[in-house]
Amino acid sequence: MTSTQSHLVNGVDAERLAATVSAIESQPGLGRFQFRATNRSISGGLNRSQIGTFHGAGAEHRVDTAPFVVDNDEPPVLLSDDRAPNPVEYVLQALLGCMTTSTLYKAAAQGIEIDSIRSEIEGDLDLRGMLELDPDTRAGFQAIRARLCIKTKGDRQALRALHRSSPVFDTIARPVPIEVTVEFED
Amino acid sequence: MTSTQSHLVNGVDAERLAATVSAIESQPGLGRFQFRATNRSISGGLNRSQIGTFHGAGAEHRVDTAPFVVDNDEPPVLLSDDRAPNPVEYVLQALLGCMTTSTLYKAAAQGIEIDSIRSEIEGDLDLRGMLELDPDTRAGFQAIRARLCIKTKGDRQALRALHRSSPVFDTIARPVPIEVTVEFED
Repeated sequence: MTSTQSHLVNGVDAERLAATVSAIESQPGLGRFQFRATNRSISGGLNRSQIGTFHGAGAEHRVDTAPFVVDNDEPPVLLSDDRAPNPVEYVLQALLGCMTTSTLYKAAAQGIEIDSIRSEIEGDLDLRGMLELDPDTRAGFQAIRARLCIKTKGDRQALRALHRSSPVFDTIARPVPIEVTVEFED
Repeated sequence: MTSTQSHLVNGVDAERLAATVSAIESQPGLGRFQFRATNRSISGGLNRSQIGTFHGAGAEHRVDTAPFVVDNDEPPVLLSDDRAPNPVEYVLQALLGCMTTSTLYKAAAQGIEIDSIRSEIEGDLDLRGMLELDPDTRAGFQAIRARLCIKTKGDRQALRALHRSSPVFDTIARPVPIEVTVEFED
């Protein structure tokens, strides 16, 4: 991921990044994004999401392109056929991906070149929570541990905490209000 | 998703589900799972995860099968090429998938047949948080709204809150401790 053009740092256009930051500073509403997905059940643990349009920087995006399709399933030990990762695995991989991108973008903004980032993650989850067999056990992850390995000749100290600005990190580390409406049809 | 065999409810083997619950009740350690992923950066917003083995019910799983590969990218307005959903979109779709599966499984355990679940979700995120332009704006989702539409002839009241036992719902709604180790190589 060394720069191939003068304005690319870590594969990120550092000039456009600086311009984006300036634009949001002068017009805060441009920072407001809304991301979306839809899903439909197929059978048992298998269901299918579509990820299409989103709003951001004052406009709608992906309006004329086909949505991404993402399948969720559960493995045999969780009573399905393992045709895709399960939802909690998607959350773990999203956390790695988001910490990686946040680190690369923030480093690019500071002009620090990163050759690569490799990472791994594990999350502990006790089914007694979801099954409501123990009131003291939560349904979700009890703890998540990740390791990032950053290959760089740049300033290590400046890179050490950049992952903490990751939107997925913050979404998991701190509570998010979720409003769910349940409707029925015959 | 009507039963095609007598023991399948919502595509879930209700007898195996009951046996699983009993086994965890009598041997709580069987409920402990650990899910995992790895990731490597490619360029800019593009990075690639692998989702392979996990531990659960006292054993390692997916030991002899190839890992799932999941790409993350960012759209052009976020300075990349939109070759895949971005990490926060994966989190939203995982929440829909997990609420759907939790509802179907819990309904199956109660013998309530569901024909299908369709759902949609949106999440508000302000880039000023991630960019640290405003100390009062968080990096992650500020609010998430979802709508589940359950097609069933069964007891609606019994189905109304089953999504709340979803592990991804709990992971996002309540804080999870995340420990991140950052290492460097030249």
